[in-house]
Amino acid sequence: TMRLSPRGIQCHAFEVENTPSFLVGNKFQLDDVIEAQQFNRDIPNAIFEVAHEMEMVEKNSPRSQILKGYLMATLFYEPSTRTRLSFESAMKWLGGEVLTTENAREFSSAAKGEMLEDTIRTVEGYSDIIVMRHSESGAARRAAATAGIPIINAGDGPGQHPTQALLDIHTIEREIGKLDGIKVGLVGDLANGRTVRSLAYLLSKYQDVKIYFASPDVVQMKDDIKEYLTSKGVEWEQSANPMEVASECDVVYQTRIQRERFGERIDLYEEARGKYIVDEDVLGVMQKHAVAMHPLQGLMR
Amino acid sequence: TMRLSPRGIQCHAFEVENTPSFLVGNKFQLDDVIEAQQFNRDIPNAIFEVAHEMEMVEKNSPRSQILKGYLMATLFYEPSTRTRLSFESAMKWLGGEVLTTENAREFSSAAKGEMLEDTIRTVEGYSDIIVMRHSESGAARRAAATAGIPIINAGDGPGQHPTQALLDIHTIEREIGKLDGIKVGLVGDLANGRTVRSLAYLLSKYQDVKIYFASPDVVQMKDDIKEYLTSKGVEWEQSANPMEVASECDVVYQTRIQRERFGERIDLYEEARGKYIVDEDVLGVMQKHAVAMHPLQGLMR
Amino acid sequence: TMRLSPRGIQCHAFEVENTPSFLVGNKFQLDDVIEAQQFNRDIPNAIFEVAHEMEMVEKNSPRSQILKGYLMATLFYEPSTRTRLSFESAMKWLGGEVLTTENAREFSSAAKGEMLEDTIRTVEGYSDIIVMRHSESGAARRAAATAGIPIINAGDGPGQHPTQALLDIHTIEREIGKLDGIKVGLVGDLANGRTVRSLAYLLSKYQDVKIYFASPDVVQMKDDIKEYLTSKGVEWEQSANPMEVASECDVVYQTRIQRERFGERIDLYEEARGKYIVDEDVLGVMQKHAVAMHPLQGLMR
Repeated sequence: TMRLSPRGIQCHAFEVENTPSFLVGNKFQLDDVIEAQQFNRDIPNAIFEVAHEMEMVEKNSPRSQILKGYLMATLFYEPSTRTRLSFESAMKWLGGEVLTTENAREFSSAAKGEMLEDTIRTVEGYSDIIVMRHSESGAARRAAATAGIPIINAGDGPGQHPTQALLDIHTIEREIGKLDGIKVGLVGDLANGRTVRSLAYLLSKYQDVKIYFASPDVVQMKDDIKEYLTSKGVEWEQSANPMEVASECDVVYQTRIQRERFGERIDLYEEARGKYIVDEDVLGVMQKHAVAMHPLQGLMR
Repeated sequence: TMRLSPRGIQCHAFEVENTPSFLVGNKFQLDDVIEAQQFNRDIPNAIFEVAHEMEMVEKNSPRSQILKGYLMATLFYEPSTRTRLSFESAMKWLGGEVLTTENAREFSSAAKGEMLEDTIRTVEGYSDIIVMRHSESGAARRAAATAGIPIINAGDGPGQHPTQALLDIHTIEREIGKLDGIKVGLVGDLANGRTVRSLAYLLSKYQDVKIYFASPDVVQMKDDIKEYLTSKGVEWEQSANPMEVASECDVVYQTRIQRERFGERIDLYEEARGKYIVDEDVLGVMQKHAVAMHPLQGLMR
Repeated sequence: TMRLSPRGIQCHAFEVENTPSFLVGNKFQLDDVIEAQQFNRDIPNAIFEVAHEMEMVEKNSPRSQILKGYLMATLFYEPSTRTRLSFESAMKWLGGEVLTTENAREFSSAAKGEMLEDTIRTVEGYSDIIVMRHSESGAARRAAATAGIPIINAGDGPGQHPTQALLDIHTIEREIGKLDGIKVGLVGDLANGRTVRSLAYLLSKYQDVKIYFASPDVVQMKDDIKEYLTSKGVEWEQSANPMEVASECDVVYQTRIQRERFGERIDLYEEARGKYIVDEDVLGVMQKHAVAMHPLQGLMR
C-alpha cells in the first residue's frame, strides 16, 4: 500500500497547473498547494488514500510519530482560529511540531507589500513547510514563488482556499459515492467566498459535472470562474431560484451571506437571507439521496 | 494511593451544581470546570491531592509524561498572558501538547454571538480538553453545553474564575491549616472581580465560614452572591472599615482597584486607593497567624 | 571539546558590564543577555564555538534532544514574527519546548508600567528562560532585575538587540576572517536602529576597529554611542558621503530608511533613499574582499 514518507514531501519550485505526478516510487510528493486548478483528478484521490490511512492513526500510538522531527510554520496574516488549529492539531497528532503565528505582522503596514517575501525567506529557514493565510488574493502564489519549501494556501483573501475544497469533494464523494456526473448547487454569496471558487475549480476536473449558481445579484459568481468552467467544458447555469436548484442537485452547497457585503442596502440583505439560505423548505424539495453542505453546521439531509 | 489516569478525564454533558463524585474506581474523573458552586467540598480536596502528587513531578523525568499524547486547546477570546501560560506550562510540564490561541477571533464581530458554539464544535474535534477565557459572563457555560469534551473556564467576563478560586483556597488551607471556621475579608473592587465571586461561592462549601466585604460604594459585591451565601447559611457582613475587617480575619484578600471603574470620579478613585488597599497599616492590625493575599504580590504576612 | 550542558545555564542576578567568565569547568554558563556592552570579547567566541556545534545538529537526530525538558517563554510585547520564530525554531530544533506570546498584553494599558515586573515574576515560575521583545528601552534590564531565570533581550524599543549584533559579528568574522582591525561603515538610519547600536557596542570590544557613520542628518547615530566609543578608544568618523565610506570599509552595514522618521519632510526622505541605500553604485566602489550586509537581503558582494 501507499504510505506517507515525510522525507518525500519536497518542493523547490512553484508548480503551475497540471503539475506532474507527485508519486515517486512509493513516496508521496507534493509541492505547494496554492489553487485548486493545479490538481489533476488523480491527486485528490491519492491524497484521500493517505488521509484514510491517517484517519486510522490513534493518538499516543507509535504510528502517530510519522511526522516526528518535522516543523510546520503557520503564518496567518489574518486570524482564523479554526483553520489554523485544524492544521496544527493534524501536525501534532502525527508527532510533528508547530511554529505558530496567530496574526503575523511586521514593522509598518505601509511596507507590508515588500515584507511577505522577506518573511517567507526567513521562515523557510526555520521550518519544513509553511501554511499561510493572507488577506490578499495571490499572496500564497507570491510566497510559493519565493520559498524553497512547500507552501500551503489556507486562504488568500478573496482568492482561493484549496485545502477546504479538497475536504469538500472528499465529503461529497463519501456521501454521494461518486464525483463524475454529479450536479452541485452553489447557493449564497458566491462573489466573496474563496472556498466556493476553489470548489468550482476542483469540480471541473471531473467528468460530466454540472454546476448551478444561485446567489443575490450583488454577490454573483465572478466571470473568471464562469469562463474557466466554460473553457474546460463544464456545464454551468445561473439560477435565480434556489428551490429549483435544490430539487435538481445531488449536493447543495451553502455559503455564508454577510451583511457587510450589501452596504447600505439592508433591504437586499434581508431579502437574500430569506431566499438564499438553505432551510427546512429547501431541504424539503431536495432528492432523497442528496446532501446539503454548510460551512459551519456540516452535513444536513 | 490515588493517581491521575488521564484516560479517566471524560465529559459528555454539562454538569450542574452538586455534581456526582468524580472518582470512579481509582480514576480521576472531572467534567467541565465552569463555576465554583459546582463543587462539593470533596472535589477540591481530591484535586489538591492530585496537585500535591504533580508538584513532586520533576521536569524531564519519566513521570512527567503522564499527559503524553493529550492535546489541550487554550481558546482565549481576550488575552491574558499569565493565565494562559499557567495552563500551557502545566500541560507541557506533564508531557502533553498545546494548541494555543492568544486572542481568538473569527470573521466579523457582528456575528460573534453565534460563533462561539461553532468554534467549540470545531475545536473539540482537534483536542482533548479546552481551556477558555471569554469577555462575556456565561460563555464558558455555553461552550460546555455544546462540547463533548471537558471545558475549563479560565475566566468569563465579570462571571467567574473557578480555577483561580481553587488555587486560592488551596493557598488558604496551606497557610491557615483549615478552611472550616475561617474568617475571610474580601477587600477592594468586589463588583468586577470574577475571582472574588468564585472564591465566595467556593468558601460557602465549608462549615462556619464568615465573609466580610469591604469595598468602595461603586464597586460593592453584587446581590446575587450575597443572596447565594444567605441561602446557604453562610454568615457575611458588609463593612466600611477595612482596618476593622483586617483585625478580625484569618485571611485578607485584596482585589485590584481599577481607575476605569470610577468613570469621571477621580476623587472617589483616589479615596478608594487610600482606603481599600492593603498596606503596612492594614498588615499592622492583622492577627499574628493571619495572611493577606494579593492577586499579584502573592502572600504577605 | 566544550559542550553545551543546559543544566549549566543559570542566572540569579542581573549582570553588569564585564561579566565574569561564563565557563565553569566544562559547562556553558551565561546569565542574562541584555545589552551588547555586557560582553567581553571572549564571550562571543565561546558562543560561536557552541553555535558551530549546534549547526551540525540534524533535525530528528538523537543529538537534537539536548534541550529536552526545557521550556522557553517568548514574551513579545510587540509582534515580530521573524525574531520570535527564530528563537522558537532553535529551541524546538534542539528538543526543547516553547510557551509563546505573539503580542503580550495584560489588563489596561494604563497600568502597563507596573505590569512587566508582575508578569516576569509569574512567567519565571513556568519556564526556564524568557526571551522578550518590548517597545520600551530598558524593559529587558528591568525584567532581568526582577527575574531569577535568564532573560534574553530580543529588542527593547530603540534600545538594543544584542543577539542580532552577536549574529552580525559572527557573520563578519566568517566573511572577513577577522574582527580586530576591521573598518565598518554603518549606513542609513542610525538613530532608530537598535541593532546598529548593539553592533557598535560589540565592535568596541575588538582591537583597532574603525567605525564610519553615514546617515541623513535627522537620523544620525546618537551621542551616547559616540561617547561610549570614544571612552573605549574606538576610532569613529561621521561622514556625509556613503560612497567614500564604502570604498574604505571591509563591511558596509545597511539599516532601513523608514519614511515615518522624516515626518512631513518627504523631500528629505526621498533624498535619503537616493543617497543612503546600498545599491549597485555603492557595491561598485567597495573593495574586492569587502561585504555589504542588509537586515533583509543578507550578504551582498
